Amino acid sequence: MRIAELSRRTGVTSASIKHYVREGLLPAGERIGYNQTAYDESHAGRLHLIRALLDTGGLSVSATRAVLAAIDDERLPVGRVLATAQDAVSRTDADPSPGALARVRSVAADRGWTVSDDNPGVRQCAEVLDRFADIDRDDLGGMLERYADPVLDIARGDLRAVADDRGDRDRMAETVAVGTALGDAMLAGLRRMAQEHVARTAGPGTDDER
Amino acid sequence: MRIAELSRRTGVTSASIKHYVREGLLPAGERIGYNQTAYDESHAGRLHLIRALLDTGGLSVSATRAVLAAIDDERLPVGRVLATAQDAVSRTDADPSPGALARVRSVAADRGWTVSDDNPGVRQCAEVLDRFADIDRDDLGGMLERYADPVLDIARGDLRAVADDRGDRDRMAETVAVGTALGDAMLAGLRRMAQEHVARTAGPGTDDER
Repeated sequence: MRIAELSRRTGVTSASIKHYVREGLLPAGERIGYNQTAYDESHAGRLHLIRALLDTGGLSVSATRAVLAAIDDERLPVGRVLATAQDAVSRTDADPSPGALARVRSVAADRGWTVSDDNPGVRQCAEVLDRFADIDRDDLGGMLERYADPVLDIARGDLRAVADDRGDRDRMAETVAVGTALGDAMLAGLRRMAQEHVARTAGPGTDDER
Repeated sequence: MRIAELSRRTGVTSASIKHYVREGLLPAGERIGYNQTAYDESHAGRLHLIRALLDTGGLSVSATRAVLAAIDDERLPVGRVLATAQDAVSRTDADPSPGALARVRSVAADRGWTVSDDNPGVRQCAEVLDRFADIDRDDLGGMLERYADPVLDIARGDLRAVADDRGDRDRMAETVAVGTALGDAMLAGLRRMAQEHVARTAGPGTDDER
């Protein structure tokens, strides 16, 4: 199909399609004549995946490239795809304080969690604790302990979803990558909904009006 | 204090401080002479809050401005601050399909959640469902039902943290705004950690190596 048809089918503009090819996210189409390029079903599928990671998952172009490369590399174990996806969805420029890092690690250790030193979630949580300290609101840091047990439930479900695809490496890799990137958005969206429900039913104070 | 001292104290560059003043996030300092401006403690506190929302919470400049204005407006009920913060941390340009919206609303209705039609979480979750459908992975949408109950636990804790500040409108407003924006980052970070733990302890398949 021509680029106009690919654009119509996927809802991605022709300019964005060309941009993704230049950025190495999408394989180039086949040149079939002067100024004409043919695309096939694989391009449509890949564009949908790019849009999911980039627009809905909020990944950067370079993070999307890294995740797609991890999915495509069939020799890469699924555990490495998970680590790549986790790095891609995390801020990497944070430099948390030793005290905050120690507190996050102790929350994991207290619960018997096996978490490596370079897990990007440790630094992300520690950075949040540092920001609470900056605004003299250390009391808000209690969410770290409060969230830990419900989040373990969530992670168990995430990994069961991966196990459902056992035996199909490519499908597992996609589940891990897409689930990591879009699961955050789903979690945040549901939290908005649940917060409104609890605020409305908990009595006066936070449910004044919407 | 001079801008250099304010920069040193908060870790925010002088260029960024001037940018935040121009963007209306930070009140201007007091002109005390030719090319000299004095800042006080209130500027340092506000800069820490801006950095928390903008850098760690990942809010845009305009979303940060809206949240700060909601915190500052003492006539605004805390419930409206919550709605403002929720809108600020959500994508507003999504246009989910009617089918996905209906499924998200039914997950809330099945659990007796009271959620208004304009809750931004509904559209965010529906957008994720649409992306799963695009890549022919409707099976991944099961995370919507899986996440709902743990997330309700999380939201209950969030609202209890707000209730702890009862009687102090400004502190409640800050708790709601900062908790909404930075709670997502904490949740995502903990999910990274818990996923690694579950992958490592669940046996072969996803724990190959890290």
